[in-house]
Amino acid sequence: MGSSSSERVEGQNMYKEWMSFQEQELTELIHSLNLNKTTATTSDNDAEINALLDKATQSFQDYIERRNRLARRDTSAFFSPRWCSSFESSMLWIAGCRPSSFFNLFYALCGSDIDSRLSQFLQDGKSDEFPQLSPSQLVAIDNLQRRTIVEEEKLTSQFASLQQDKADVPLALIARKLEGPQYELNEDVRETIAEIEKAMVCLMEEADNLRLETFKEMVKILKPVQALEFIIAAKKLRVCVRSWGEERDREHGQEDKE
Amino acid sequence: MGSSSSERVEGQNMYKEWMSFQEQELTELIHSLNLNKTTATTSDNDAEINALLDKATQSFQDYIERRNRLARRDTSAFFSPRWCSSFESSMLWIAGCRPSSFFNLFYALCGSDIDSRLSQFLQDGKSDEFPQLSPSQLVAIDNLQRRTIVEEEKLTSQFASLQQDKADVPLALIARKLEGPQYELNEDVRETIAEIEKAMVCLMEEADNLRLETFKEMVKILKPVQALEFIIAAKKLRVCVRSWGEERDREHGQEDKE
Repeated sequence: MGSSSSERVEGQNMYKEWMSFQEQELTELIHSLNLNKTTATTSDNDAEINALLDKATQSFQDYIERRNRLARRDTSAFFSPRWCSSFESSMLWIAGCRPSSFFNLFYALCGSDIDSRLSQFLQDGKSDEFPQLSPSQLVAIDNLQRRTIVEEEKLTSQFASLQQDKADVPLALIARKLEGPQYELNEDVRETIAEIEKAMVCLMEEADNLRLETFKEMVKILKPVQALEFIIAAKKLRVCVRSWGEERDREHGQEDKE
Repeated sequence: MGSSSSERVEGQNMYKEWMSFQEQELTELIHSLNLNKTTATTSDNDAEINALLDKATQSFQDYIERRNRLARRDTSAFFSPRWCSSFESSMLWIAGCRPSSFFNLFYALCGSDIDSRLSQFLQDGKSDEFPQLSPSQLVAIDNLQRRTIVEEEKLTSQFASLQQDKADVPLALIARKLEGPQYELNEDVRETIAEIEKAMVCLMEEADNLRLETFKEMVKILKPVQALEFIIAAKKLRVCVRSWGEERDREHGQEDKE
C-alpha cells in the first residue's frame, strides 16, 4: 500500500551508502593485495586476507537482508531501480547480478592473468606470483558452476511464469471488466499486485541467496589471495559500471537522481 | 556517445504519445466491438473490424521502427525505461512484453468467457455470441505457441550470454587495470559499451520482430471478432498497468517523471 514516508528515497539512500561502502572496502582490499605482493606469503597474510573476505561476505549478507526488508514494502523498485544508471539497470537479472557471471569473470581473470604473466615473462623473464588453480580447485569450480547454472535457469523460468501467469493474466482479467478512460487502483487490483509482489520478493530472496551462496562457495574453493583478486575484480566492475553508467545518463540528457 | 539534445526526453515523449494513442485506439476498438454485439454479424462488420486490426498492427509496427531508431542512439534507456512506472519496468522482457504472454492472455480470455457464458446461461438460459474456437484454430494457436516459446527461450539465453560474456567480462578486464577512486569513461570503455549496446539493439529488434510476428499470426488464425476481443484485452492490460503503476509510484514516494 505504501506508507507516507518515501520508500523510494530510502531505497536510493541505502544503495548510495552501499556503493560508497563498496568503494571503501575496495581500497582496503587493494591495499591488502599490494601488501601481500610485496611481502613473502605467510600464514599471517592469509589470516588477514581471510578476515577481510569474511567481512566482505558479512557486509554483503547484511545488505541483502536490509534491502529484502525494504523490498517487502516496495518490491518493483528493486527490479527496476531508479537509483541505478540505465546501463546498470539494463544489466540486472532478478534485482541483481547473475550468479553464473562470477564464473565468467573468474575464468576471464585467470585467462587474462595467463596473458599478462606471459607478456611479463617475455619482457623481463619474471612471472607474477598469482597462485595457479590446482586440478582439484578446477574440478570444484566447474561443479559449482554447473549447479549454479541449473539453479539460475530455474529462477529465470520461475520469473517468466510469474510475469505471465501471476501478473499478466489476473491483471488482464480485472482490466477487462473496467470501463475507461480512468482506471483506478481498486481493491481487487491492490490485492492482485500485492500477490505478484509477494512472489517477486520470494524470487529476489532466492536469487540473493544463490548469489551469496555461490560467492561463499567460490571463496571457500579459492586460496585467500585468489579469492582476494576475484573479489577486487568483481567490486571494481560494480563501482566502475556505476560511474560509467551515470556519466552516460548525463550525456543522454537524464537528469540527476538527486 | 549521445548528442547534446536530450534523448531521454525524446524517448519519454515518444512513449507518452504512444500510450495516449493506445487509449484512443482502445476507445475505437471497444466501440466497434459494441456495435458488432448489437447488430447481426455481417461481412460488413468483419470488413470494418479487419480494417481496424490492420490499422492497429500497422501502428504497432511504426512504433517499434521509431523506437528502434532512437534505441540505436540510447539503448539502455529502453531496457530499463524511466518513463514507465517501476511496476511496468519490472515486468519487461527485452524492452517489451513476452510474446508468449499473448497465449496465456488468450487462453485466460477463452476460459473466463466460458465461465461468464455459463453463468449467463444459468441465469437467463441465453448464451453470449462470442464465437467459439474451432478445432483447427486450437491446433494452429497451439503450434504457434510452441514455436513462439522456442524463439523466446532462444532470445532469453542470448540476452544472458550478452550480459555475461559481452558485458561483464570485457568491462571487468578494463576496470581491473584502472586506478580509482575516479573511474572515467575512457575510449576503451566507450568502445566496449558501444559494442554491448549494438548487441542489445539487435536483440531488441529480434524480440520486437517476434512480438509483432506472433501478434500478426494470432490475428490471422482468429476470426475478426475474436481478434478484436483479444486486442482489446491486451491493450486494456497495458493502459491499466501503466495507470496503476503510476499511482503506486506516487504512493511509494516516487516523484513524477515530468
